[in-house]
Amino acid sequence: MQHGFLEEEKRGVYRAIAERRDVRSQFLPAPIPDAVLARLLWAAHCAPSVGLMQPWEFIVIRDAVVKQRVGDLFERANRKAAGVYEGEQRALYDSLKLAGILEAPINLCVTCHPTVSRGFGLGRQTMPETAHYSSVCAVQNLCLAARAEGVGVGWVSILDPVELRQALAIPPRVDPVAYLCLGYVNEFLSRPELEIKGWEQLVPLAELIHFDSYGGRDSDCAVRLAGSAVAENKE
Amino acid sequence: MQHGFLEEEKRGVYRAIAERRDVRSQFLPAPIPDAVLARLLWAAHCAPSVGLMQPWEFIVIRDAVVKQRVGDLFERANRKAAGVYEGEQRALYDSLKLAGILEAPINLCVTCHPTVSRGFGLGRQTMPETAHYSSVCAVQNLCLAARAEGVGVGWVSILDPVELRQALAIPPRVDPVAYLCLGYVNEFLSRPELEIKGWEQLVPLAELIHFDSYGGRDSDCAVRLAGSAVAENKE
Repeated sequence: MQHGFLEEEKRGVYRAIAERRDVRSQFLPAPIPDAVLARLLWAAHCAPSVGLMQPWEFIVIRDAVVKQRVGDLFERANRKAAGVYEGEQRALYDSLKLAGILEAPINLCVTCHPTVSRGFGLGRQTMPETAHYSSVCAVQNLCLAARAEGVGVGWVSILDPVELRQALAIPPRVDPVAYLCLGYVNEFLSRPELEIKGWEQLVPLAELIHFDSYGGRDSDCAVRLAGSAVAENKE
Repeated sequence: MQHGFLEEEKRGVYRAIAERRDVRSQFLPAPIPDAVLARLLWAAHCAPSVGLMQPWEFIVIRDAVVKQRVGDLFERANRKAAGVYEGEQRALYDSLKLAGILEAPINLCVTCHPTVSRGFGLGRQTMPETAHYSSVCAVQNLCLAARAEGVGVGWVSILDPVELRQALAIPPRVDPVAYLCLGYVNEFLSRPELEIKGWEQLVPLAELIHFDSYGGRDSDCAVRLAGSAVAENKE
């Protein structure tokens, strides 16, 4: 249609979406130039936000002392998290590298100020969680722009939010939404690392599609929809 | 760097990010071909998810009866929401078109199953909200792919989630995350509609950047970072 992109631009969008990986093990020490970081932050700031509230802020972390502090929080939270697994699954869990906080040249905390006056509350009365969702859209914009730049991003969720807030002096009115590790990489894996390592598998898309209401199944149509997408993207 | 995209592919990624709009008023009745819808759902399914839990499901809504039901919920929630504004702001609110539920050929509800067993809880112990955030990443992937295809997306948050759940028969274990309207458009506005209409303005990026901790200000560096991004993207 008339407002669609040129083929090569469209290919870029789909490549970024398909080839983005959550990076933990492949970071290189090469610094990210300010001009590249600037484009990534700008991409994040282009995100949609409910009522145009733009609730996000960005804490750019390059100080090794701060990284070490957050790295210590991760180690503690990760040891605790490991405790719920047993036997083979525990051994597999322990073998996973789940964060690259110290290796990544830049860490970035994306926050949300859910009661910011901007936007005058438009659209936030019935689903107030859309404030936080707006900051998540900013994160995903940044991850896709980063992929296009050849920069890997790892999202670390194994952190106690109360401790993270203290470590970064985030005030009570603002919430940490995502703690990200950014850096150039020696490779982008062809599949998600948790799939390669055997932790979990990808679900066939067709199983996740409903029609007109939840449970409204039309298997033929779902398989056709899902199948055509897969076929195209394998070309 | 070596894993970065070709210039025209990179341009596609940044165009999608910059030219994506939340669409409410510009939908055309032209149907979205199944092949295009398939690519959009596939893009969503490529999103990152905590522990590879893939908590999203997609309810594709084409039935006019279901759309009308949700449209009625929107009208009721919107009248109630309007009640908090007074005077000129109320007049402006009333003049805004905030959803294109009936006009858009496809409505799509993206959900989250926050306790799904997939992923075995990895990464969800300290920040369980990352389950919902994973579904939001799927939404943003879809919105960007849609922009590349020339398809507009409008995210409707003015809906009571309890009523929406009933209207779409969503079971208690699953949460509606986003209700989207999809369709080709007669135009993508050059700026966010809420900015054009005078509801809210864009914040300068430099005001949202901190260094090493919240409140860690380095105005020169922030302005330089934000400024270089703006300059490049105005070219």
